[in-house]
Amino acid sequence: MSISIKRMAQDLKLAVSTVSKALRDSHEISEETKRMVLDYARKVNYIPNPYAGSLTNRTTKNIAVVLPEVADTFFSNAINGIDSVAQARGYHVMVYLTHEQHLREMSILRELRSGRVDGVLISVAAGDGRDISVFNVLCDELPLIFFDRVCEGVNAAQVLTDDFESAYHATRHLLLKGCSEPVLIAPAGELSIIHSRKKGFAAALAEHGIRWDERFFYRCADDQDGSLHSVTALFERHPRVDGVVASVEKVAMQVYAVARERNIVIPRDLKVIAFSNLQIASLLDPPLSTIEQPAFEMGRVAATLLFDALIKKRDVRNERIIIPSVLRERASTAETYI
Amino acid sequence: MSISIKRMAQDLKLAVSTVSKALRDSHEISEETKRMVLDYARKVNYIPNPYAGSLTNRTTKNIAVVLPEVADTFFSNAINGIDSVAQARGYHVMVYLTHEQHLREMSILRELRSGRVDGVLISVAAGDGRDISVFNVLCDELPLIFFDRVCEGVNAAQVLTDDFESAYHATRHLLLKGCSEPVLIAPAGELSIIHSRKKGFAAALAEHGIRWDERFFYRCADDQDGSLHSVTALFERHPRVDGVVASVEKVAMQVYAVARERNIVIPRDLKVIAFSNLQIASLLDPPLSTIEQPAFEMGRVAATLLFDALIKKRDVRNERIIIPSVLRERASTAETYI
Repeated sequence: MSISIKRMAQDLKLAVSTVSKALRDSHEISEETKRMVLDYARKVNYIPNPYAGSLTNRTTKNIAVVLPEVADTFFSNAINGIDSVAQARGYHVMVYLTHEQHLREMSILRELRSGRVDGVLISVAAGDGRDISVFNVLCDELPLIFFDRVCEGVNAAQVLTDDFESAYHATRHLLLKGCSEPVLIAPAGELSIIHSRKKGFAAALAEHGIRWDERFFYRCADDQDGSLHSVTALFERHPRVDGVVASVEKVAMQVYAVARERNIVIPRDLKVIAFSNLQIASLLDPPLSTIEQPAFEMGRVAATLLFDALIKKRDVRNERIIIPSVLRERASTAETYI
Repeated sequence: MSISIKRMAQDLKLAVSTVSKALRDSHEISEETKRMVLDYARKVNYIPNPYAGSLTNRTTKNIAVVLPEVADTFFSNAINGIDSVAQARGYHVMVYLTHEQHLREMSILRELRSGRVDGVLISVAAGDGRDISVFNVLCDELPLIFFDRVCEGVNAAQVLTDDFESAYHATRHLLLKGCSEPVLIAPAGELSIIHSRKKGFAAALAEHGIRWDERFFYRCADDQDGSLHSVTALFERHPRVDGVVASVEKVAMQVYAVARERNIVIPRDLKVIAFSNLQIASLLDPPLSTIEQPAFEMGRVAATLLFDALIKKRDVRNERIIIPSVLRERASTAETYI
């Protein structure tokens, strides 16, 4: 434990408040006393408490990053992007994991109102029953930036990728490669990105003269076992499904596992494309076609906006930045001739 | 921004110090004034600054997790394990990424001395030139727990996996499957875990009558391009290499990529086993044999030790907990008959 102000005051036979004021260079303290205190502080290697200043000016040099999970290539790369900016500005990154649970998300956001951080970057949890007022209250108090998964109706900046266009292109790709019964698989719960992807998926179908039907949209449980189970159920109920747009990486991996188990050959019987940032997509069997999101860049841009609000006091609330994703065609969606 | 004490004092026409003391339930303030201040604080939804208390008792309810990187299945799972304990105890997790750089690690550790956190969990950076004194100074001031990658000579608790035994079993596995020229590939720099794995590797060779030689140990550059280059150079210089123990996940992926490029067929021409927590190892082409480290559990146990030190004031510095890894045999190390 570093030496405290109290201890220094004892050693110097001064009042605690005198030492404290001397360290803050207060005009109430004589130059002589200040010099004595500062010399002693240097001698005993006194380190000021970083939160001492925050009582008056309320800055902590901490930012919060609120995420559903970290064991996912999108989010881990986004953290790297955020960290690259935060470290350069001398800020500290506090990571809060919601595990896709709204109640946890809300309690985290309430806790963040207490002044522990200067600003918030958030990608919201899936699942239903969000209380939007928690976001609005927090936004009035702190700069808050949404990235990837946003909560509509909150007056805050958004950093997104082109979910509608990406889903449209992915679906069109499946249809052009010969699929006639593709499905979009998404995790349970209301998410802005899933809403956009669903619209993009339907637009591509419409273009091919296929009318939207709820059977094209399949919800998947959130946990590992549940999602394996959901994917198995999908293939049992809809044996004619010949294409999958997986809206999260994990779902694509479950589709691969279930296909292997049921002797469904990818891409011959089933073509698969996934929203994923897996660097090793090309080493899978077969190599997986992906919609690669600019995760690092989205994190970097979101953090930059936050520091613009914090440091330059710029009003960024109406900013809405869209960074496009890239479709990478691999063997899992190859055309097959029988 | 939440309403400040200063603002409340103005509204109530009281001195700031009176409001502050009333909120802290000081005996210097009358019961009547206290009631008035508290009623008003409730009415305007005043939130106390969480760091106000920390000036006197110096607790922040923050813990630091210092890691080389987050985009790696071992570390992201370890964070989940740490987070599971921290959230339950009402602590906040600050994540610091060193990107395997010692200078950055040292500056982070120095910064942590200033009282921003109550304790530290760390998995050290690779690379040479570590200044051990930075660790010793920090350990005198705060509870610090090493997990996975430790810095020897520092008086702090360690949570490890059985690196010697794992490397021994992995190497023995390669030799039993027919390899005669296996190599251990590790990232550059001095790391406790690599030291143990090297010894385990050599022990398995010795048991098979093969004398240790530096040609069996291959260092790999740290970044993506550099490491691809290193792996390519390895196969050019040592075309007889028929087995690889990859000490990090990324290296295994580079071996797969280079093998594919050079028409080296795994497992026929080259058998590969890796220290990795990739959940999708079985979906790779071919499925990758792994030494699966108990990442979540190591994070959970390390965090539990830290809270024992913080909350129960238990001296954990001599604890050394070893949680075994599991060898998962898959097609990448299958015996092949020509």
